[in-house]
Amino acid sequence: MEAHEKKVRDNFGRQHFMSTIGAEMVSVGRGSVEIRFPFSPKLTQQNGFVHAGAITSIMDSACGYAALSVAAKAADVLSVEFKVNLLAPATGESFIARASVKRAGKRLAVCTADAFAIRAGKEKLIATMLATMMNMESKLK
Amino acid sequence: MEAHEKKVRDNFGRQHFMSTIGAEMVSVGRGSVEIRFPFSPKLTQQNGFVHAGAITSIMDSACGYAALSVAAKAADVLSVEFKVNLLAPATGESFIARASVKRAGKRLAVCTADAFAIRAGKEKLIATMLATMMNMESKLK
Amino acid sequence: MEAHEKKVRDNFGRQHFMSTIGAEMVSVGRGSVEIRFPFSPKLTQQNGFVHAGAITSIMDSACGYAALSVAAKAADVLSVEFKVNLLAPATGESFIARASVKRAGKRLAVCTADAFAIRAGKEKLIATMLATMMNMESKLK
Amino acid sequence: MEAHEKKVRDNFGRQHFMSTIGAEMVSVGRGSVEIRFPFSPKLTQQNGFVHAGAITSIMDSACGYAALSVAAKAADVLSVEFKVNLLAPATGESFIARASVKRAGKRLAVCTADAFAIRAGKEKLIATMLATMMNMESKLK
Repeated sequence: MEAHEKKVRDNFGRQHFMSTIGAEMVSVGRGSVEIRFPFSPKLTQQNGFVHAGAITSIMDSACGYAALSVAAKAADVLSVEFKVNLLAPATGESFIARASVKRAGKRLAVCTADAFAIRAGKEKLIATMLATMMNMESKLK
Repeated sequence: MEAHEKKVRDNFGRQHFMSTIGAEMVSVGRGSVEIRFPFSPKLTQQNGFVHAGAITSIMDSACGYAALSVAAKAADVLSVEFKVNLLAPATGESFIARASVKRAGKRLAVCTADAFAIRAGKEKLIATMLATMMNMESKLK
Repeated sequence: MEAHEKKVRDNFGRQHFMSTIGAEMVSVGRGSVEIRFPFSPKLTQQNGFVHAGAITSIMDSACGYAALSVAAKAADVLSVEFKVNLLAPATGESFIARASVKRAGKRLAVCTADAFAIRAGKEKLIATMLATMMNMESKLK
Repeated sequence: MEAHEKKVRDNFGRQHFMSTIGAEMVSVGRGSVEIRFPFSPKLTQQNGFVHAGAITSIMDSACGYAALSVAAKAADVLSVEFKVNLLAPATGESFIARASVKRAGKRLAVCTADAFAIRAGKEKLIATMLATMMNMESKLK
């Protein structure tokens, strides 16, 4: 495993919230990350769809790790801000967020992510994120 | 309990994701809603802070219910989009999102929410949201 | 000229602000629109770069017209909201915004736009937008 | 005139785009700034309302100057990103943006702005912004 992937996967392994929602890291490229979780009734909102907050959580983490994967000197990243558009109800067997870096600066990275619902092997776009991440030289104390 | 509060609390009771993250509705006014959850290690990101996605989840739900509380004809609301700025690390004993309606239209409502960390009885602003919600005449099928 | 292009170009011709900033419509496809303007000292901020507001203006108009180009029944569109990330200083000989529709619903369309500075024939990404547009059955009165 | 106000007003005087749209600085406080412009047919979109880009421009500048007014060491600020919700058509005799700092950090400041249309002495809320600004130690070269 390459250094950037190891750094990202180790960091992801410390995000307890990801395991709480059943999320796993699917792939780590240079500047791109995929995170998914299976449907669970624990994650639903009032209509039985997955809550926007759960979908946002994997898009946010995926954006952060996409930024971290290309930040050679950064030991960590934190979210500065993000914006999400919900495009379709989150119904499906599983959900995947695919993030990539749009522009990586020294301190800030701008990332985008799309989230898809997967049903019977077919993907449907359900949400999109535009986010700003900040490189941290080391973990906050 | 007034009709608008009952409508909001009944709807909130159907959001399983809120109980998964330990969230409860604190108060429902006309056009304002508060939701909180206690700290739990289940909700943390890589540094032991609460994950931005968990904070976003209660801000999103609070914005939606603030919109629903003033939408006389709407049976439900869905999030169109939201933007969140993370202002400080989410560390504390509990976390509260306070949402209010900025402008309520026939179909769309624009809401804002602030999220606070509470430690030793003191509140600290940790995040803010600007969101667009859509009134639904009835549950989506 | 096809009907969707004529509808868009006629509407653009009524946007006096576009001619104030020197903007012209470059192309209109089904679901995609390009608008550009040349550099002018009239458009600058404190450092001699083009003001973020001028770049935002052509991204916003381009997103709106991308939405209008695929909204068969809509006579017009209005911006509900947009978010812009500024990625690099707006310096160049001209500036172009390229918008496309990400998801078109009955009432709302979600669009993205990238803005580029052009210098010596080379393009540089300087900003990106994620926007929500609303279809209007006819002009507001 | 106090130092923070002088720094802001001098900087504003160099924004040619502000004079192109007829904007003037109304007031500068510590952490709050007001910018206005009168209605002009040069600023309109297809329905005769003021273009969202013009309203955004004064909200963006107002947010930037609100941040600058409290950044003792910063010689300048640049916009990282902003999100705008358009709440009502921009019709009126004049338009004012009121910005204030929500949280000022060492490098980044988060600001909000509301924009109002003024007609017959009455103000109507027409737009709102949530923005991230970055302190610069000196002008970019």
